[in-house]
Amino acid sequence: MAEAGCIIVDWGTTSLRAKLMSATGLPLDGRETGAGILSIKGGAFEDALTDAVGDWFEAHGPLPVFAIGMITSRAGWMEVPYVDAPAGIEELRAGARRMTMRNGAPITFLAGLRDPLRRPFPDVMRGEETQVVGNGLGEDLTLVVPGRHTKWARVEGAKIIRFQTYISGEMTELLTSHSFIAKAAKPRSDDGPNWEAFDRGASFAASDNDAADALLATIFSARTGMLDGKLKPEEIADYVCGLVIATEFCYARDADWFGRGDTIGIVGNDGLNHLYERVSPMFGLSVRYGREDAVERGVLTIASKLL
Amino acid sequence: MAEAGCIIVDWGTTSLRAKLMSATGLPLDGRETGAGILSIKGGAFEDALTDAVGDWFEAHGPLPVFAIGMITSRAGWMEVPYVDAPAGIEELRAGARRMTMRNGAPITFLAGLRDPLRRPFPDVMRGEETQVVGNGLGEDLTLVVPGRHTKWARVEGAKIIRFQTYISGEMTELLTSHSFIAKAAKPRSDDGPNWEAFDRGASFAASDNDAADALLATIFSARTGMLDGKLKPEEIADYVCGLVIATEFCYARDADWFGRGDTIGIVGNDGLNHLYERVSPMFGLSVRYGREDAVERGVLTIASKLL
Repeated sequence: MAEAGCIIVDWGTTSLRAKLMSATGLPLDGRETGAGILSIKGGAFEDALTDAVGDWFEAHGPLPVFAIGMITSRAGWMEVPYVDAPAGIEELRAGARRMTMRNGAPITFLAGLRDPLRRPFPDVMRGEETQVVGNGLGEDLTLVVPGRHTKWARVEGAKIIRFQTYISGEMTELLTSHSFIAKAAKPRSDDGPNWEAFDRGASFAASDNDAADALLATIFSARTGMLDGKLKPEEIADYVCGLVIATEFCYARDADWFGRGDTIGIVGNDGLNHLYERVSPMFGLSVRYGREDAVERGVLTIASKLL
Repeated sequence: MAEAGCIIVDWGTTSLRAKLMSATGLPLDGRETGAGILSIKGGAFEDALTDAVGDWFEAHGPLPVFAIGMITSRAGWMEVPYVDAPAGIEELRAGARRMTMRNGAPITFLAGLRDPLRRPFPDVMRGEETQVVGNGLGEDLTLVVPGRHTKWARVEGAKIIRFQTYISGEMTELLTSHSFIAKAAKPRSDDGPNWEAFDRGASFAASDNDAADALLATIFSARTGMLDGKLKPEEIADYVCGLVIATEFCYARDADWFGRGDTIGIVGNDGLNHLYERVSPMFGLSVRYGREDAVERGVLTIASKLL
């Protein structure tokens, strides 16, 4: 086995993803648990991390740890102040904070990013900036990081110059779990999305109808579609998912995150990338998938002089 | 006591509102219970109605009953087919369905309204059409019926010619009860809305910012406003409420339900009217409040030849 070099932890509100990396930056081992920061009681983050990767420390000694995500927020282990956009690798590196674990391992918390020009209040991200960096800042490009709170980020001149959050993942979840839709919908099939239903929702939001992006109205179409015999209970969840994500694209287009004919990059690991890929051509977009190992590459890039 | 003439029941998913009316159309008694149709097991609607107003039958005999609302839907007591807009009093009257209760009282279920021209599917209402009729169809006017599923309806030539549903009431409830906002928000004060917080949300949505109506983005501002120290936990619910309702006005404006300088009517009894009144001037609108007794007036108008 190659010599171990460090541990990377992508620690969000609902999950903990850890990778054991070699000294040359290759993944040696990885795991994901449900020990998100919301599940950690009484600030026992160090115990939780030891539970998750203690065997790696035992095998390889007190390896340096790099942590990103909501673990660096006020609700996490160590609150790291946001770095303001525009920001590149140097700015993000300067924002990192370090402490020493009880076992002697140095743990570095990477900074999140703030966009002070968003309105009505500055926007924020914690973790996605690392994925954007890991995808490479060499090319001017708009990138999407799909998730519960999807981020659209603009890279120019080797910096993330601005970004915007859209809560489409959470909105779909809210609607299909707690709204009038939840009562009417049957669970989706395990075989993945019903693309016909997804497309029906997405293509309406992508249409030139006056009300195409009027989310408060279009969501009601999940009910009226059933009343009209056009949507089946088992199609509702995918229909709503397509509607919500394509509405996000409407808003992103209207806020100049892209124009027709552009290429966008899709980066991320929250399982929603294929949905964004599906919607992109409806808005005249070509898609380039980002690197699968964007998190690790981003951490190692930002941390390269911190090791 | 004046002679009793009929009983009017506004029976929705979560509540039952009954009024005992005199033979000359004046209210003699009224009550509201939580016996909405979702709480009725095994189709026991007649028992539920008898529980609610049995004493009126005992005192006055088998009075005619008129029922509106979701009780006339597939999930209710008797499904009444929708009448298609444009529709006035005659069309709605023709759509009513009658049966006889066990005690001999005739019960008439008034029809809901369908707008076949809404997209992606025809829109529907059950009950609000009666309130619009009760407010009077004599004047060409756009009316709003605020609620869990708010309706905007256009009256022209003594008919309801078109309408649109916006799920703003439910959306606010979803966000403040189940989303990331629910975790951060403290309950609102019992003293009613914090108007400063409400206005902050509403005025952003009413602004000319590129992203003012991009609901999936603006909702995230409930978090970023707190991070930025601009919103307090006890202000969040009212902030989000203002944001959502004013976003509805953006959509309604873009779909030509009104233009700047117009007067709109606000009709309804779901406790949200003052919120819509508050937002209206932000969009250059004057407000005229509808009749408080719009439900009763509407039923009696539609039912006048059915009695």
